[in-house]
Amino acid sequence: MQEIVAIAEEAKQASRLLAWAKTEVKNRALEAMAEGLLKEKAKILEANAQDLAAAVEAGHPSAFIDRLTLNEKWLEQMAKALKGIAGLPDPVGEVTGMWRRPNGLLVGRMRVPLGVIGVIYESRPSVTADAAGLCLKSGNAVILRGGKEAIRSNGALVDVLEEAISDAGLPKGCLGFVRTTDRAAVKALLTLDRYLDLVIPRGGGELIRMVRETSTILVIAHEKGLCHTYVDEDADLGMAEEICYNAKVERPGVCNAMETLLVHEGVARDFLPRMIERLNKAGVEVRGCPRTRAIAQNVKEATEVDWETEYLDLILSIKVVSSFEEAVEHIARHSSGLAEAIVTKDHGRAMRFLREVDASAVFVNASTRFTDGGEFGMGAEMGISTQKLHARGPMGLQELTSEKFIVFGEGHVRDSRK
Amino acid sequence: MQEIVAIAEEAKQASRLLAWAKTEVKNRALEAMAEGLLKEKAKILEANAQDLAAAVEAGHPSAFIDRLTLNEKWLEQMAKALKGIAGLPDPVGEVTGMWRRPNGLLVGRMRVPLGVIGVIYESRPSVTADAAGLCLKSGNAVILRGGKEAIRSNGALVDVLEEAISDAGLPKGCLGFVRTTDRAAVKALLTLDRYLDLVIPRGGGELIRMVRETSTILVIAHEKGLCHTYVDEDADLGMAEEICYNAKVERPGVCNAMETLLVHEGVARDFLPRMIERLNKAGVEVRGCPRTRAIAQNVKEATEVDWETEYLDLILSIKVVSSFEEAVEHIARHSSGLAEAIVTKDHGRAMRFLREVDASAVFVNASTRFTDGGEFGMGAEMGISTQKLHARGPMGLQELTSEKFIVFGEGHVRDSRK
Repeated sequence: MQEIVAIAEEAKQASRLLAWAKTEVKNRALEAMAEGLLKEKAKILEANAQDLAAAVEAGHPSAFIDRLTLNEKWLEQMAKALKGIAGLPDPVGEVTGMWRRPNGLLVGRMRVPLGVIGVIYESRPSVTADAAGLCLKSGNAVILRGGKEAIRSNGALVDVLEEAISDAGLPKGCLGFVRTTDRAAVKALLTLDRYLDLVIPRGGGELIRMVRETSTILVIAHEKGLCHTYVDEDADLGMAEEICYNAKVERPGVCNAMETLLVHEGVARDFLPRMIERLNKAGVEVRGCPRTRAIAQNVKEATEVDWETEYLDLILSIKVVSSFEEAVEHIARHSSGLAEAIVTKDHGRAMRFLREVDASAVFVNASTRFTDGGEFGMGAEMGISTQKLHARGPMGLQELTSEKFIVFGEGHVRDSRK
Repeated sequence: MQEIVAIAEEAKQASRLLAWAKTEVKNRALEAMAEGLLKEKAKILEANAQDLAAAVEAGHPSAFIDRLTLNEKWLEQMAKALKGIAGLPDPVGEVTGMWRRPNGLLVGRMRVPLGVIGVIYESRPSVTADAAGLCLKSGNAVILRGGKEAIRSNGALVDVLEEAISDAGLPKGCLGFVRTTDRAAVKALLTLDRYLDLVIPRGGGELIRMVRETSTILVIAHEKGLCHTYVDEDADLGMAEEICYNAKVERPGVCNAMETLLVHEGVARDFLPRMIERLNKAGVEVRGCPRTRAIAQNVKEATEVDWETEYLDLILSIKVVSSFEEAVEHIARHSSGLAEAIVTKDHGRAMRFLREVDASAVFVNASTRFTDGGEFGMGAEMGISTQKLHARGPMGLQELTSEKFIVFGEGHVRDSRK
């Protein structure tokens, strides 16, 4: 795979220049990338139309076609995201703290780029612009490898983005793109640990497992999203209904949608019949524990498998619990560690839930659907991490950097005997 | 390896309680650990004497015996480090930032423990107390696996530390200790990724490679320390001499000692003869590039291999460079990424060196020997990372934690169409 090695080498070279590129140069590139997308709309949408035609012919399901589809509105949003990234503070070079040691040495930490980041994704072409923009602003070269069904769309997008980067005076290697759709290319890329510093896979569980198993480079990802909402005995039931409905119904196919609802026994009888009726009306299939089934109509039996299942669909499992502790314990056993929510008016339990629930994002009185870099105010996102090392939760600019210690002395030497 | 699984299970259980243990309880345990070491000095030193006798009999070299040796002063330093850790701020639960979104949602980040940390180390028994103390304070359960030659010393230390932890009311599982010296035990531990969140190997390159290759758990470590000092054309040559002498001679066997000296051609003739004479007097063997050999006496020829070698000994390679850029380029090609230093009076080049040199710690006018958690004011250290992900440089309490997003709403639901 000589082609892949050449891309990686060029990215490595570019990353050393990009690491210390001036903020205004990076921002000029981001603005030009946004302008380019808008100017070349027709060309990009034509390439996308070809991808779509091929995908329809190949018999891909409608959800797949949906993810693959670009339109004017999407392109405008991609451009807006790039401009938004230009407007965010530059994380590179920030000194995040500096202190004076008793011997007069000044010790500090400076934020620096990671180097070269590989992004392996599936059919969503919008990842192309987001990843290119976030990596550029954070001073990292990026190598993109999208799904083969989106190859024409991604190629057209990269052509535009690459030109904008060159015009701003940055090396083309800042944005590497794997044009071959050969599967061996991914494998080759994932073992170039002397060039790449990090790999971020974005897509389904199968892709992520493949990347984890193949890569000799560090991988950051989330495997699944099995989010719970716990309706406490002191919940505002009207608020709980709105939050649960939103978390399940607004976009059921995404990782931050609710999959299991936990309800305290003290409010189950008041809350569940109405909630379930409303969910049913929205087409949600409800599967419940015996206590749920005793209270409400139209509830299938939930089995142990349900508590472990990320439906990504209009299906919800419900369990009535006897205590706050039982809810926290159920979450500890079954959570994917992505996002968990409590609805309560009780301050003590709200704070205990925040402390005791181990997830990348923990919500009080809000829908888990907000688990998103944009919603958290981080601009766009490179994906979400459910790991605890390096980055956890939505990954924005800061998560694409590392730190180094910087030390100022005045001729300081060390004496170990002291 | 049922025994190892049992230790890991107990650690996992303990970690959930320890994660939210009160600061005062953790500090009480740390104080009791320190007191215990002082009270049980005789018992610990007796166990160490047995280890030492066995090591001498087995014919281990003197440097090995040196690392294995405990004495009253060492025990006092271990106790002092534990008390120091008790005095540091508790990182757990700290909210490191909180901001308000336009929709009123409050989004913040809270610092949390990682969970269970495995530490694999060689002959130094002092690691036992440092690792136990740092993990406890940062809310992580730890599983220790020291070298088989130190098994009696470590066993005696762990007995004391464990009792102190129990007396403070914390679960014994907070401090797991692998008592079997069977090599298979390490392998078993390194694949228990459902219990352990992180593995930190401390020791030589061979140990670290073995851990990296075997572990299915994330590993943080540094492989080697090949540190450079660059004496700039505008250096204070007296200062440069003291810094270089310290970096090479004070403790040559450690990772933050200097292995290669780079000198600008403008000052080489003034600086090198005197520097090399002084190094020679201290028993340092000097290997130099042709320009070095043309200037100074008693310099062997340096080959390409020398620029890549971590001597860990009284040997130094020297290269005369024609420019600041050549020095930075040499460092980029040969650095291990641990620590790099410049000696200069020129502000612009000092700042460029800080920016452009990619290492875990970059020094201006100070010895690389300061690369150490204690010297940086972080209390003790769990080791040093030369990776860029998660932790870089000396690892203290903060590096043993992760963050989670915490979100406060007032019934917020998300509307993707907006």
